[in-house]
Amino acid sequence: MSKEILYIIKVGGNIIDDEKKLSGFLKQFAGLKSHKKILVHGGGKLATKLAGQLNIPQQMIEGRRITDEETLKVVTMVYAGYINKNIVALLQANGCNAIGLSGADGNSILAHKRIHASIDYGYAGDIDAVNHIFLKNLLDQDIAIVMSPITHDKKGQLLNTNADTIAQEIARSMSESYEVNLIYSFEKTGVLLDANDDSTVIPSIKPAYYATLKAEKKIFAGMIPKIDNAFTALNSGVRRVTIGNAEELEKLISHTAGTSITNE
Amino acid sequence: MSKEILYIIKVGGNIIDDEKKLSGFLKQFAGLKSHKKILVHGGGKLATKLAGQLNIPQQMIEGRRITDEETLKVVTMVYAGYINKNIVALLQANGCNAIGLSGADGNSILAHKRIHASIDYGYAGDIDAVNHIFLKNLLDQDIAIVMSPITHDKKGQLLNTNADTIAQEIARSMSESYEVNLIYSFEKTGVLLDANDDSTVIPSIKPAYYATLKAEKKIFAGMIPKIDNAFTALNSGVRRVTIGNAEELEKLISHTAGTSITNE
Repeated sequence: MSKEILYIIKVGGNIIDDEKKLSGFLKQFAGLKSHKKILVHGGGKLATKLAGQLNIPQQMIEGRRITDEETLKVVTMVYAGYINKNIVALLQANGCNAIGLSGADGNSILAHKRIHASIDYGYAGDIDAVNHIFLKNLLDQDIAIVMSPITHDKKGQLLNTNADTIAQEIARSMSESYEVNLIYSFEKTGVLLDANDDSTVIPSIKPAYYATLKAEKKIFAGMIPKIDNAFTALNSGVRRVTIGNAEELEKLISHTAGTSITNE
Repeated sequence: MSKEILYIIKVGGNIIDDEKKLSGFLKQFAGLKSHKKILVHGGGKLATKLAGQLNIPQQMIEGRRITDEETLKVVTMVYAGYINKNIVALLQANGCNAIGLSGADGNSILAHKRIHASIDYGYAGDIDAVNHIFLKNLLDQDIAIVMSPITHDKKGQLLNTNADTIAQEIARSMSESYEVNLIYSFEKTGVLLDANDDSTVIPSIKPAYYATLKAEKKIFAGMIPKIDNAFTALNSGVRRVTIGNAEELEKLISHTAGTSITNE
């Protein structure tokens, strides 16, 4: 018997910051009727803005926010509160029963405080385990899951955690029970041959072609970690990874837009 | 066959504002092993403080916060985000599997924007329905529910909703399936004969005695609405209402502290 399909869709910050784009994306997400689905959202600029208003200085190292105690309060409020609950309310308005979670809820994502030889990332979490039984129970009730990028360590500490990594770890864990399609949706149309030309989307990437693209330096540097992560996911049981524009979610699902990455 | 007991416990703002008191309360809540339980929390002073830092003026009418658009953002962040997720993380640390919800999550509490002849309460919600099937499904998995005082109207609008009323409406709805014990826990030791003397707790109130107390003006005015609400709950199927100190939760459960209100 073939497994049921599960869509795990990460939506990026630039979409969340734009009320109209977010609303269009959520309409399409809600429209995936009778499909099991998990939405993982990032943070957007609202946390940075709120930290600014509260005079909490923000420090970024290699694109990652250093999460001190006050910043953790801000991201917990903004990600797990404001953004998460508004997304859930909008999905309910579109006829999609949804539930918003942090990793503490139902012990859904267990993490530990990042340990690093030279950089103190503060309350940043690296993932140890995904509670796939709890998540599957919700999906079995036809409830869409909306996951915020906040996890916990089961010792009472909340932790700020990268949303891309959360999507990947949930995808890996759920592959046991589902045929998982992992979709990274953001403001770009897919993996591009020319970073400045949205029409140069590569529709399909398989391992041999990826090796060629890299050897010929046809993929711009910023994309390489994303595609490497995609292959890591595929090698851990995920069926397909798609990268593309959140405003074209329906087309990403039907493989008529974006870049589809598979092993075969 | 007698119904299983369900504890629905409201914890008030003064406890939430005090880290040590909250921690003690949550330890006792987590200690109610093998019992089904729902915790309903209010807001505390943190929302008012954050609104102040963001220069959002707060207006109260008859003890109720007027919830304009900016204030709704603040209470969603603080109640459904910061307070709710920290309570869940602390319960997990105490070995109690818990899930934090707003009324939008799983469509657990449907409400409508309050309509009032003369006062515009803004985004304040009055409750229409509690999704007791969804809540029962979680309880059946031995997950404790932590409910924040934010609901939704299923049209995409979040609404600020009184936590006492949420506790009462959940209690009424769950009485169909459980023998519900509704506990209002706060900083006072119970219903007092002398408002300034914590040792004058009335241990038990039944309808006839309540009529006498009111006739003899032995209950101070602020308590009357709480007791009236308790009898409304009892008349709608709730088994017992207890009012008392959150720091004595175990004693409230064993009826050795607080005021116990019953119909028989």
